Amino acid sequence: MGKMEVERKTTGWAARDPSGILSPYTYTLRETGPEDVHIRVICCGICHTDLHQTKNDLGMSNYPMVPGHEVVGEVVEVGSGVSKFTVGEIVGVGCLVGCCGGCSPCERDLEQYCPKKIWSYNDVYIDGQPTQGGFARATTVHQKFVVKIPEGMPVEQAAPLLCAGVTVYSPLSHFGLKRPGLRGGILGLGGVGHMGVKIAKAMGHHVTVISSSNKKKEEALNDLGADDYVIGSDQSKMNELADSLDYIIDTVPVHHALEPYLALLRLDGKLILMGVISNPLQFLSPMVMLGRKVITGSFIGSMKETEEMLEFCKEKGLSSMIEVVKMDYVNTAFERLEKNDVRYRFVVDVEGSKLEA
Amino acid sequence: MGKMEVERKTTGWAARDPSGILSPYTYTLRETGPEDVHIRVICCGICHTDLHQTKNDLGMSNYPMVPGHEVVGEVVEVGSGVSKFTVGEIVGVGCLVGCCGGCSPCERDLEQYCPKKIWSYNDVYIDGQPTQGGFARATTVHQKFVVKIPEGMPVEQAAPLLCAGVTVYSPLSHFGLKRPGLRGGILGLGGVGHMGVKIAKAMGHHVTVISSSNKKKEEALNDLGADDYVIGSDQSKMNELADSLDYIIDTVPVHHALEPYLALLRLDGKLILMGVISNPLQFLSPMVMLGRKVITGSFIGSMKETEEMLEFCKEKGLSSMIEVVKMDYVNTAFERLEKNDVRYRFVVDVEGSKLEA
Repeated sequence: MGKMEVERKTTGWAARDPSGILSPYTYTLRETGPEDVHIRVICCGICHTDLHQTKNDLGMSNYPMVPGHEVVGEVVEVGSGVSKFTVGEIVGVGCLVGCCGGCSPCERDLEQYCPKKIWSYNDVYIDGQPTQGGFARATTVHQKFVVKIPEGMPVEQAAPLLCAGVTVYSPLSHFGLKRPGLRGGILGLGGVGHMGVKIAKAMGHHVTVISSSNKKKEEALNDLGADDYVIGSDQSKMNELADSLDYIIDTVPVHHALEPYLALLRLDGKLILMGVISNPLQFLSPMVMLGRKVITGSFIGSMKETEEMLEFCKEKGLSSMIEVVKMDYVNTAFERLEKNDVRYRFVVDVEGSKLEA
Repeated sequence: MGKMEVERKTTGWAARDPSGILSPYTYTLRETGPEDVHIRVICCGICHTDLHQTKNDLGMSNYPMVPGHEVVGEVVEVGSGVSKFTVGEIVGVGCLVGCCGGCSPCERDLEQYCPKKIWSYNDVYIDGQPTQGGFARATTVHQKFVVKIPEGMPVEQAAPLLCAGVTVYSPLSHFGLKRPGLRGGILGLGGVGHMGVKIAKAMGHHVTVISSSNKKKEEALNDLGADDYVIGSDQSKMNELADSLDYIIDTVPVHHALEPYLALLRLDGKLILMGVISNPLQFLSPMVMLGRKVITGSFIGSMKETEEMLEFCKEKGLSSMIEVVKMDYVNTAFERLEKNDVRYRFVVDVEGSKLEA
């Protein structure tokens, strides 16, 4: 597709109010600037955050809002200053599309911690226009926030990696846990948790899923490849597991006691929180001190880490478990996601969907 | 002093009951085994833990109890298997005198985290006899738990390093903070806090003391060499300090809010807890996640770290602020310590004291 054929108008599916119901919405994309990449969307994953944003759960939503931050597409136009991407390449866009470039996190290539970062949607871009996400025919993104999808990686497999994947990859890599032989725990088996099992297994870890029920046991062990599955309330199994894990990725998004999980960590073990929880969490200082344990958390990942993670997944042949749907199913998908009724990530086939009203 | 002159009986000052009052007590030391070092005590620091132990604050005290775990003395006899120490050398003993040798922490030379570690006093040695501390004429200790005091280091200066010193050195070293240019906070200015300022300054850090009052401001800045001094309740100063510190050593031994201090940490900043606190501490998960901050703690230090730390202090010419007292003052010293009335560590001149009744 040449430059002349690019339409600056595009159609996406937008929420109009806190009902969160998506419907067709046509809007204007900026002209492709010197540093921009104009992308025809192929597919886009659905993340739990999309649900919170469309329904205004965080009280910061602006409408109309086109969600979607696990975007995979084809480059159709590049700005004059773009040398990293060429027309026809398959690329991805994740949670962010901007940062200040000058703060200390930006200088360290950790733009996800920039206080002026710009979200892929429900934010305002530097030109004053609202940002809109990947449930749309096209998007225009600064090249810094575009990554190449490795050749041969199926597009629908790549989508969930751009948020859920890098969210677990980043802390494992940063905290020195990307090495074989470790024993990890994944607390909670949703979209991020399932990716946690996959990525930790690909890193060569022994992975124990810790869950509140037996519901997902068979599939965790048989389909995701977890080594063990423990119900948090099974005290005798939890006692057996005490002092044995190098880390736990805690994806539980609601208030919960930390002591039972701190007890599972061995010396220098790390409890890595992924859930933004509004009530304070508690812990006893001796439980941390007497094993030099670490309570920490991490937030998505940098563009550099996203690239690294994609290469890692390619190399390891990692695939996520997804359910591909068309756009006209997206509202049902959101409803099912809210009930945790998905194994484990919805991906919308945008290219194959009718978006226009 | 030759082997023939060594007495197996020794006299120390022991607490007899939870009043914690120390008085002369004569007891037997084991014969110097092949791996043992028999030490004539020169001086011994007083740590806050001594207070808790002698008064049975933790409910685990056995009497008679000779406290003291910052022991400096002279080697007077060594076992046949001891090659590391020779008679006449000045050595130190800290909090521990035994460990299992076979567990995962022991294999990593982190014996302070061994579940079977043996305390210098108020514990039972492998021969079934109670361990007794450094407020005594002599002690016999396995060579693994003896360190050389660097030549030229004044003995009374060395004493507080053996517990308070290594307690702050260990986490700074372990968590990658032993490098110049960092900005650190020391929360609470007692025995450990004062050593924290000294050691952090020696590492080349910009050090801010965070305290509950202005009482110690002048001495923190002028005598200890801190760069800044902030009262935790001074909101405008705390706001200025937000997002600026690489770490905080939190020596507060009672329940306190963590949020005000987490807010001071920059990206990847670490809150290192030193206080064993019986009530749960609280924090908000986003405050940790959105800056990849770490809440952790650490517990004294290993023998290897103690050796390293002593060499570091020697090299940097680090001196602690101490008040040297005789043994007949020890009960008064404990009373003053309880009221936090000491700048900043008492050291008992054991050699120069009359111990016998």
